[in-house]
Amino acid sequence: MTASPADAPRPRGRYPKGIARRQEILDKAIEVFAQRGSQKTSLRAIAQEVGVTHAALTHYFGSLEELLVEVYRESQRKPTVEKHAPPADSSPAAAMRLAAEENRAIPGLVQLYSTLVAMALEDNHPAAQQFATDRFARLRSDMGQQVRGLQASGHLRADLDPTLVAALVIAASDGLQTQWLLDATVDHEAALDMLDRLLRGGPTA
Amino acid sequence: MTASPADAPRPRGRYPKGIARRQEILDKAIEVFAQRGSQKTSLRAIAQEVGVTHAALTHYFGSLEELLVEVYRESQRKPTVEKHAPPADSSPAAAMRLAAEENRAIPGLVQLYSTLVAMALEDNHPAAQQFATDRFARLRSDMGQQVRGLQASGHLRADLDPTLVAALVIAASDGLQTQWLLDATVDHEAALDMLDRLLRGGPTA
Repeated sequence: MTASPADAPRPRGRYPKGIARRQEILDKAIEVFAQRGSQKTSLRAIAQEVGVTHAALTHYFGSLEELLVEVYRESQRKPTVEKHAPPADSSPAAAMRLAAEENRAIPGLVQLYSTLVAMALEDNHPAAQQFATDRFARLRSDMGQQVRGLQASGHLRADLDPTLVAALVIAASDGLQTQWLLDATVDHEAALDMLDRLLRGGPTA
Repeated sequence: MTASPADAPRPRGRYPKGIARRQEILDKAIEVFAQRGSQKTSLRAIAQEVGVTHAALTHYFGSLEELLVEVYRESQRKPTVEKHAPPADSSPAAAMRLAAEENRAIPGLVQLYSTLVAMALEDNHPAAQQFATDRFARLRSDMGQQVRGLQASGHLRADLDPTLVAALVIAASDGLQTQWLLDATVDHEAALDMLDRLLRGGPTA
């Protein structure tokens, strides 16, 4: 076997040309996933649609799973996802709702997210597992901080464990979005509002 | 093309022998999924592991997606899933926790469930979509009834919309289970207990 310079072992994307090419492939892959979804697919099929060789895709991304993770990360970085910082006194569920709305604006992103989480729960997908575990840990940490702040300023019941509140709000937001995507009569915004009112304490009507 | 009698169009599993064969394949498929997970697979690969032809699998189940739905349904029907009716005065979240515990006792079932939900969110999986939509609708309806009963008996805040409570509790249960499976330090039981106490009203400590 002869190896062309491009095939020689080398840290991925180390050189400017490699970085540009990797980005180009990633941009095309995002378009492909937005159109066709992330399920029932293979690295070979994606390579064909993106217009690169299977070897090139493996060279730049390693595996289908790693490509999916990168597509999700890149989509989140895109300027189309406008990062609005939630107001300092906004409730935890309201902050989650804002982030979820932004994600839904990008075609295929919510579907890709649920596919990555489903992969992460299987034993044989270390990249998806790392991605999902890190994402939830970061979200819980950020949300936990926000909860502590809201408790200190009297906007949230002080008798609730911030760590549990964070996990609960993230779970409710993810789960309600799923139910709403499958059945638009599910009022996921009203349900998150209700959770917010329960967390604040006082009457909920 | 010649069609053998077995290939002739005929409602699937109409005859006793066909029903027995279908069940036999399903039982084997459940073992296969419990061992290997439901991701990154194909009808052809499963046929090989189960020890039937690809044509037989297509004949009995139609598609990979329909086979996955049947494997999930069948696993839920198995006597290993002991169906404990929750006590009449138990809270909504406690009831969800019981059901979730029972599912976790079957290897691969939680993973298969998350895969089916992820498939359902894509455009091109009608069987998974129907399954997930029906399941959530039935769960919300059952849970909504339970909430109304608990409100009538004074075990749950009367000022909460039962439909929203049902959607919220199901979402929280699904989402917390996902976080806990990825990171065992997430105390999903304590978070569901907290939600229960919020729904009952009064102090939560």
